Amino acid sequence: MIDLTRRYRFAAAHRLHSRSLTAEENARIYGKCNNPYGHGHNYILDVTVAGPVDAATGMVFDVAKLDLVVRQSVLEPLDHAHLNLDVDRFQNLTPTTENLCMEIYGILSANLTHEPGKAFLKRVRLEETSSNYFEYEG
Amino acid sequence: MIDLTRRYRFAAAHRLHSRSLTAEENARIYGKCNNPYGHGHNYILDVTVAGPVDAATGMVFDVAKLDLVVRQSVLEPLDHAHLNLDVDRFQNLTPTTENLCMEIYGILSANLTHEPGKAFLKRVRLEETSSNYFEYEG
Amino acid sequence: MIDLTRRYRFAAAHRLHSRSLTAEENARIYGKCNNPYGHGHNYILDVTVAGPVDAATGMVFDVAKLDLVVRQSVLEPLDHAHLNLDVDRFQNLTPTTENLCMEIYGILSANLTHEPGKAFLKRVRLEETSSNYFEYEG
Amino acid sequence: MIDLTRRYRFAAAHRLHSRSLTAEENARIYGKCNNPYGHGHNYILDVTVAGPVDAATGMVFDVAKLDLVVRQSVLEPLDHAHLNLDVDRFQNLTPTTENLCMEIYGILSANLTHEPGKAFLKRVRLEETSSNYFEYEG
Amino acid sequence: MIDLTRRYRFAAAHRLHSRSLTAEENARIYGKCNNPYGHGHNYILDVTVAGPVDAATGMVFDVAKLDLVVRQSVLEPLDHAHLNLDVDRFQNLTPTTENLCMEIYGILSANLTHEPGKAFLKRVRLEETSSNYFEYEG
Amino acid sequence: MIDLTRRYRFAAAHRLHSRSLTAEENARIYGKCNNPYGHGHNYILDVTVAGPVDAATGMVFDVAKLDLVVRQSVLEPLDHAHLNLDVDRFQNLTPTTENLCMEIYGILSANLTHEPGKAFLKRVRLEETSSNYFEYEG
Repeated sequence: MIDLTRRYRFAAAHRLHSRSLTAEENARIYGKCNNPYGHGHNYILDVTVAGPVDAATGMVFDVAKLDLVVRQSVLEPLDHAHLNLDVDRFQNLTPTTENLCMEIYGILSANLTHEPGKAFLKRVRLEETSSNYFEYEG
Repeated sequence: MIDLTRRYRFAAAHRLHSRSLTAEENARIYGKCNNPYGHGHNYILDVTVAGPVDAATGMVFDVAKLDLVVRQSVLEPLDHAHLNLDVDRFQNLTPTTENLCMEIYGILSANLTHEPGKAFLKRVRLEETSSNYFEYEG
Repeated sequence: MIDLTRRYRFAAAHRLHSRSLTAEENARIYGKCNNPYGHGHNYILDVTVAGPVDAATGMVFDVAKLDLVVRQSVLEPLDHAHLNLDVDRFQNLTPTTENLCMEIYGILSANLTHEPGKAFLKRVRLEETSSNYFEYEG
Repeated sequence: MIDLTRRYRFAAAHRLHSRSLTAEENARIYGKCNNPYGHGHNYILDVTVAGPVDAATGMVFDVAKLDLVVRQSVLEPLDHAHLNLDVDRFQNLTPTTENLCMEIYGILSANLTHEPGKAFLKRVRLEETSSNYFEYEG
Repeated sequence: MIDLTRRYRFAAAHRLHSRSLTAEENARIYGKCNNPYGHGHNYILDVTVAGPVDAATGMVFDVAKLDLVVRQSVLEPLDHAHLNLDVDRFQNLTPTTENLCMEIYGILSANLTHEPGKAFLKRVRLEETSSNYFEYEG
Repeated sequence: MIDLTRRYRFAAAHRLHSRSLTAEENARIYGKCNNPYGHGHNYILDVTVAGPVDAATGMVFDVAKLDLVVRQSVLEPLDHAHLNLDVDRFQNLTPTTENLCMEIYGILSANLTHEPGKAFLKRVRLEETSSNYFEYEG
């Protein structure tokens, strides 16, 4: 088993605000991130797949296929979007980086079919700023 | 003369849209950056001051003073803001990174008094993504 | 379960010298790091906490609280210090980065109370130079 | 147990071409990487050893010894080489980064004797470009 | 006047060997870089254009146009190539990074028409490894 | 004319304290950097030479010669040293990074003979932390 990690980037805006909290709680918990108009980040997304190396090709996963799946299912809907306003999933879910990381894992997990004996989705790592990143393994 | 460059970071949302262009022109020129709800970036701001080294302290500029000026005049109004909606200056000016870079230079130039024989503001460098940065020297 | 990693930085001096070794052994084992007056590093400290995401806030851990604990218990005593001379713990323990990494883990572990069903300290990673880093999970 | 990771760099050329595939398959699967004359990379190699900290020295592994082993067994044969043409092992094995990563693990595993109660080779991480890296743990 | 710098990447192999030097001189001057089969690098190319900001768009240069020119005239012929064997210009010119940097400047200068009052090519910066880069301003 | 910049690294300790200032002034101006025992940094040193490209070799400067000069005259005396205590020049000069940067420029300028029509020392850049760097051109 070997791991391949591939890096992608997207830029998006979000506002941290939870419907299940009062205005005061939102302001206290999220601070400047609760600013009504939102703010934004350059997210760095690292996708890790793990599996055996194919004897004929010497590769663990078809990188072109991985790029296609990530681009169509993650980058196109999220890049240059306002997460709260442009993305259905975040109408009722606060787009913290935790929730965004788990949502991306779920999308990729559904779109990267796991054939027996082949590589599978192992981990999603989402970096919000150079001081902060999140990792989710399902 | 020696140059000191100090790095700061802030996160903000913006929408590229010019009032002097038609909707079609805006869409064609700015592409995904014209998305109505905006998107965002982690900006990296490098401020360079240049001057002689003070014989007593061995320093070219008081870093604590530089940090205070940058924090009060630039980071507090811009960090976690939506540039088009939260910042007066960008009500009538498209917040491209070019315009943002020159605006920050103007603010710092007005707030860093240049005493004769002392260091002065030399350059502002603003990085929008890891593929793109702008430099302005007035 | 999701992991959050947050990055901190501090600068310190140290000298690698063990009281249980002879002068010759110290010189041979630690090389230039045994220089009597010490030398220094910009350490990069990554603290990882792991836990479930809170349904109300969408967050795994209160980042402001984490920053406060790390600042008070780790950065204030270590930043701009000479580890051998300014820090009690290293009066009798050689401040190799291995020992420093485990010491920071111990401090954080004692200061980040682990409430059931909440996030806990998972790992400390300490980078000494761009060629060298250490990880400790308790 | 604590982990030490140390970073090394080397530059090499390679061509992705498998003898067990037809010319058409090689072209389709490897794309530009199948270019007859080869192309090259600056590889970044991170070697991780794990073990207990020695009570006398405060160290997990003798870094000078690790450097010597990596330099003699990995960097000297691979740096500034054409992997397909200069390295015996890749006469009959396609030098994908997967295969190169596992080959380096095997070489280091054979050259870093594991004494009981001491540190052992835990992981090799090989970065091909800033978008791609591989990890192998044996 | 404001500067915009945009970053591109490509991977290529090269061999340092000069026809105007003897075999001994080639070996002495270029060292391991004279290896007959060549070796390779991940080059990082930073292209800087300088000019006034357009009042209507707030932009100094059309980034999509810059990307198109760089991709067609530089990245397509050089990426995943062996510089000595695949690129005509280096049949009779040693592909040191100095020569490659000046060659890319010449290509971009010829392909980025400089209209009066508009932005022009200011500088090309080519990074060979994380320890080495070259800059050329014509 | 083309510029070559080469990167070196060293680790050292220093204490900011000026003999021409009172204890109170030293404490106020240098803050934590005035700590009696000193603290330390991983300095990153970028040396830039500029000149024409040699027609025979395609190189602007002999990199092996540059490495030798930098290693012997700068890295050996400074690496793993306490600047105030181990380095003569800083017995009477506060080792701020400004003064260190200018001192290194002076040392390199004296050791890199400038032959007519050949490359010369253009700039020294010294990075103290990831937030701070200094540049000196003589």
